[in-house]
Amino acid sequence: MPASPEPTARGERALIERLRQLLAPPESELHATADDDTVGFGDDMALLTSASPGPLLWTVDTLMDGVDFRSGSHPWDAIGRKALAVNLSDCAAMAARPVGALCSLVLQNSLTMDDAVALVRGAAELGRRYNCPVVGGDTNSWDAPTVISFTVAARVLPDVPSVRRIGARAGDRLYVSGRLGGSILGRHLTFEPRVALALDLARRLQPHAMIDISDGLALDLDRVLQASRCGAVLDETLLQAVIHPDAEQLAAQSGQPALEHALHDGEDFELLIALPADVDTATCATLGLLPIGTCTGARGMYLRNAAGEQRPLDPRGWEHFR
Amino acid sequence: MPASPEPTARGERALIERLRQLLAPPESELHATADDDTVGFGDDMALLTSASPGPLLWTVDTLMDGVDFRSGSHPWDAIGRKALAVNLSDCAAMAARPVGALCSLVLQNSLTMDDAVALVRGAAELGRRYNCPVVGGDTNSWDAPTVISFTVAARVLPDVPSVRRIGARAGDRLYVSGRLGGSILGRHLTFEPRVALALDLARRLQPHAMIDISDGLALDLDRVLQASRCGAVLDETLLQAVIHPDAEQLAAQSGQPALEHALHDGEDFELLIALPADVDTATCATLGLLPIGTCTGARGMYLRNAAGEQRPLDPRGWEHFR
Repeated sequence: MPASPEPTARGERALIERLRQLLAPPESELHATADDDTVGFGDDMALLTSASPGPLLWTVDTLMDGVDFRSGSHPWDAIGRKALAVNLSDCAAMAARPVGALCSLVLQNSLTMDDAVALVRGAAELGRRYNCPVVGGDTNSWDAPTVISFTVAARVLPDVPSVRRIGARAGDRLYVSGRLGGSILGRHLTFEPRVALALDLARRLQPHAMIDISDGLALDLDRVLQASRCGAVLDETLLQAVIHPDAEQLAAQSGQPALEHALHDGEDFELLIALPADVDTATCATLGLLPIGTCTGARGMYLRNAAGEQRPLDPRGWEHFR
Repeated sequence: MPASPEPTARGERALIERLRQLLAPPESELHATADDDTVGFGDDMALLTSASPGPLLWTVDTLMDGVDFRSGSHPWDAIGRKALAVNLSDCAAMAARPVGALCSLVLQNSLTMDDAVALVRGAAELGRRYNCPVVGGDTNSWDAPTVISFTVAARVLPDVPSVRRIGARAGDRLYVSGRLGGSILGRHLTFEPRVALALDLARRLQPHAMIDISDGLALDLDRVLQASRCGAVLDETLLQAVIHPDAEQLAAQSGQPALEHALHDGEDFELLIALPADVDTATCATLGLLPIGTCTGARGMYLRNAAGEQRPLDPRGWEHFR
C-alpha cells in the first residue's frame, strides 16, 4: 500500500488522481463499457455504453457507516467490496449481467487518503472479477459518518430473460440459493453475489419471479408475493436445511430459535426464486437450490410444521425509515 | 399536499408506495426510458433503456445537508430539485440529452414522510420538464444529516457530438453561458441546467471542450486546461460583463471584490466553453455566450488587465476532502 501523502497533498483533486490511477484498466484490457470511446473517470460524465445490443437495467444502493458497516471494526477494502456487491446482487436478482459502476463517496473528514483509496480498491477488485469496472463517480467529504453509494448498470442478455418480482403464481415452487441467517457474524461483508448462478438458472429453469434476500427471507418473500398478488406456505421441515451455521451460532447468543434468524435476518444476499410447479427438481439440486415451500392462490404467508399445522409468518425484516 | 400519515404508517414500504404513486407517469404519457417494458420503481433494478440508438453516458452527484443545502432554511422540494439539477448540468456539460434518473436517499430520521415526498416531488417535477423521469432508487434513514444522490443517464444524439474537457487548444476562445458569482444568495437552488443551450451550441459551434461551472470559474477552467494540456489568459475587461448582480451584492457583504466572487464562487452551473479561434462570434452573441479570454499554448492561468499586465489566476474554488 502506498505511503500516506502529506496532508497538503490531500484535497479532492489529489484523491481523484489516485482513484484514476487505481481504476485505469491495464493497457491490454479495455473497459467492458468503453469499447469505442475514452470518456472515463474525471470528465463530467462517464461512458456507460457505446453499443447496445440489448436492454439495460440500473440500480443504486447506499451504505452508511454505523448502519450497514462499522468503520471501526471492518477494513475499508471489505466495506468498499460490500458496497458494490449489494448492487451486483440486485443484478443477480434480475438475471442481468453487470456492465459497469459509478461510485459516489461522502467521506468522513477523519478518513485518510489511504482509507478512501482502499475503499475504492475493494470495490474495483470485486468489479473486475464480475466484468463490472468502476468507471466514474464523485467524491465529497463532511464531518458526519461516511456514506457510500454505488450505481450499477446491467445488460439483459439475448438468451436470458430478465426476471422480475411480479411473476409468481399459485403452485410455484419456492427455492433459495443457499442457507440463511446470522450473516452479521461476517458473511454480510464477504458474500459472493449470485450473478453466475442467476444467469444459469434463468436460462435453464425459466423462473417466474426472483429477488435477492437483502432484508430477510420473510420480508423479501412478502415483497414478491405483494408484487405477484399471491401467497405462500413455507415448510418448516424444509426450512431446517436452510438454516445457516451462523444462524445457529447467533441463536446461541440471542436466545432466539435459529429458524427465526434464518427467516428474519437481513443481508444473506441469496436468491429467492419462484419456479414453475413442474420444474425439473434434479436441475434444481444440481444448481444447489434448496426448496422451502409453495406459492398459494390465497394471500398471506404461512409456516407449516411436520404435523401439517399452519401459522402466519410475519413479514418482519430489516426496514429503513421506521 | 396530502396529510401526514400516522407514525405507524411510516416505514420504508409506506414511503416507497407514496413515491411510486408520485413518480408513476400519467397513463397517457410513457416514460421516455421505459418504452417497451414495465420494470420500474420498486423492483430490484429499473429499466434504463430498451432501445439504444446511440451511446449512453451517466453521472452521479451527491448533496449533503449542511454542505450543499440547509434543510433548516431551504424547502425540501427546492432541495430535491437542486439534487437532480446538478446532474442535468453535467449532461449539459457533455452536450448529452438526459433520459432518466435514479435517486438514492439517506434521510435523517427527523424528516417527516411529507418532507421526503416533497424532496422527490421537487426532483420529479424538474425531471419531467427535461424528459428525465426518476425511474427508481433506494431509501435509507439514519440519525445523521440527510444525503441525496442522483444518478442520471444521458444519450449522445446522432447529430450532436458529445463534448469533453480534453479538447481545448491554444488560440481557442473561452466563453461562459451566463454571469457568475454570488449563487449562494439563492441561484444555487433555482438555476436552470443549460441542457437545451448545450445541445444547440454543440450542434452549431463545434466546441473543443466544455464543462459546467460547479466549483467556480477558476477551478473548473483549471480542470479543462489540465485535461487539455494548455493554458489560458482571461481578460479582466471582458470579465466585468460576467459579474452577476448577486456577486456585487455579496461583495458588499464580504468586503471582497465582486470579481473574486465571479472567479471563485461555486454553484453557478453555467457552461464554460472553448470554441475554435475562428468561431462565428455573431452566433455566440445570439446564443447569449459571453467571451472571457483565450487559450494559450503555455500552461498556467492568467488575468490580463486593461493595461495588458498579467497576473497569475489561482485555481481556487470549492473543493471537497481538503
